Amino acid sequence: MSDDEVPPAARARVAAAVRTSLAKHGYARLTTAKVAAESDLSEAGLYYHYDTKDEMIAAFLTEARGSLDAELDALAEADPEARLRAVCNHLLVDPDETERSGVYVAVMELLAHAPHNETLHEHLAAMERHVLDVVAGVVADGVEQGVFREVDPEGTAALLVAATDGATGIDLALGLEVHDELRASLQDYVDSLLAD
Amino acid sequence: MSDDEVPPAARARVAAAVRTSLAKHGYARLTTAKVAAESDLSEAGLYYHYDTKDEMIAAFLTEARGSLDAELDALAEADPEARLRAVCNHLLVDPDETERSGVYVAVMELLAHAPHNETLHEHLAAMERHVLDVVAGVVADGVEQGVFREVDPEGTAALLVAATDGATGIDLALGLEVHDELRASLQDYVDSLLAD
Repeated sequence: MSDDEVPPAARARVAAAVRTSLAKHGYARLTTAKVAAESDLSEAGLYYHYDTKDEMIAAFLTEARGSLDAELDALAEADPEARLRAVCNHLLVDPDETERSGVYVAVMELLAHAPHNETLHEHLAAMERHVLDVVAGVVADGVEQGVFREVDPEGTAALLVAATDGATGIDLALGLEVHDELRASLQDYVDSLLAD
Repeated sequence: MSDDEVPPAARARVAAAVRTSLAKHGYARLTTAKVAAESDLSEAGLYYHYDTKDEMIAAFLTEARGSLDAELDALAEADPEARLRAVCNHLLVDPDETERSGVYVAVMELLAHAPHNETLHEHLAAMERHVLDVVAGVVADGVEQGVFREVDPEGTAALLVAATDGATGIDLALGLEVHDELRASLQDYVDSLLAD
């Protein structure tokens, strides 16, 4: 069944189960039995809507994109400087947020499989492209309003997204305890974007 | 056999074979048969020195740390600003460098396994900690010489290493074509560190 034809409530249930089980087990050790164990669906129930484990993961990635939009929409800050600071703070996951850390580490693992896996590649690319566009939009607003210098919105977004993605390895997966320093440096970077 | 007892030439041969096969196949699909196929060693020869596949990968990570030192030592630039720019340019892998891109994507996959794998965790943490220290050292030199503002060397290094690590996902694994923008933004970030 194509994901578009799956009833939204069913997709959300599968995505939530995939999210929890990915956070706990990672991608390589994920089985549909483990996904089922994290939900009120049986394995047969999972396969009723999706033909493969990767399609279930794709459903999770599609839902994750929607959740991120909702989270970013919920950020109250309207002016571009405060909004960019809030977006950076949101994208940089705190190691103490156990489930969210697990999800970010699992997404990093999925990214490593993307070159060999078309389904994952397509859905991860859509998700990361979306994050880049959202951040670039905030930067572009700031440049237009004269809050930021004439920086390149796409390049600035690429650096910020790369930095928050890359924190997953050194901070979340390895626990090198660079979190506070990283958070402060991101804010210092936003300072450096401000127009004189 | 502990890695310290493996003759350096044998370790280098195993590490080179692991590097090439990891770049080609990634971690999940790596077998010692594939590692042997990339070297003049048989599988029996690999197991003569190392008990497990992960120990062979650990040998590769130890060698990689040494290679990075040699590469960074080879950067001719002595003054901190030029040196930091050169280090950033070196750490940011060009998607056209096929083997090096493959290695970075495989290391990203290894990072995702680190929370569940003590051997990988230990060797990856040593490697990433070393990169952080090298970059922080260059920043600290620049601050001391008055070339850079009074920025926090550790935080600045964390941001730069996170950004170049995170480029692996969006730029190398997904091919979102943010490479030139990212390279320019890193240089713009170094600009922002300069003392007035």
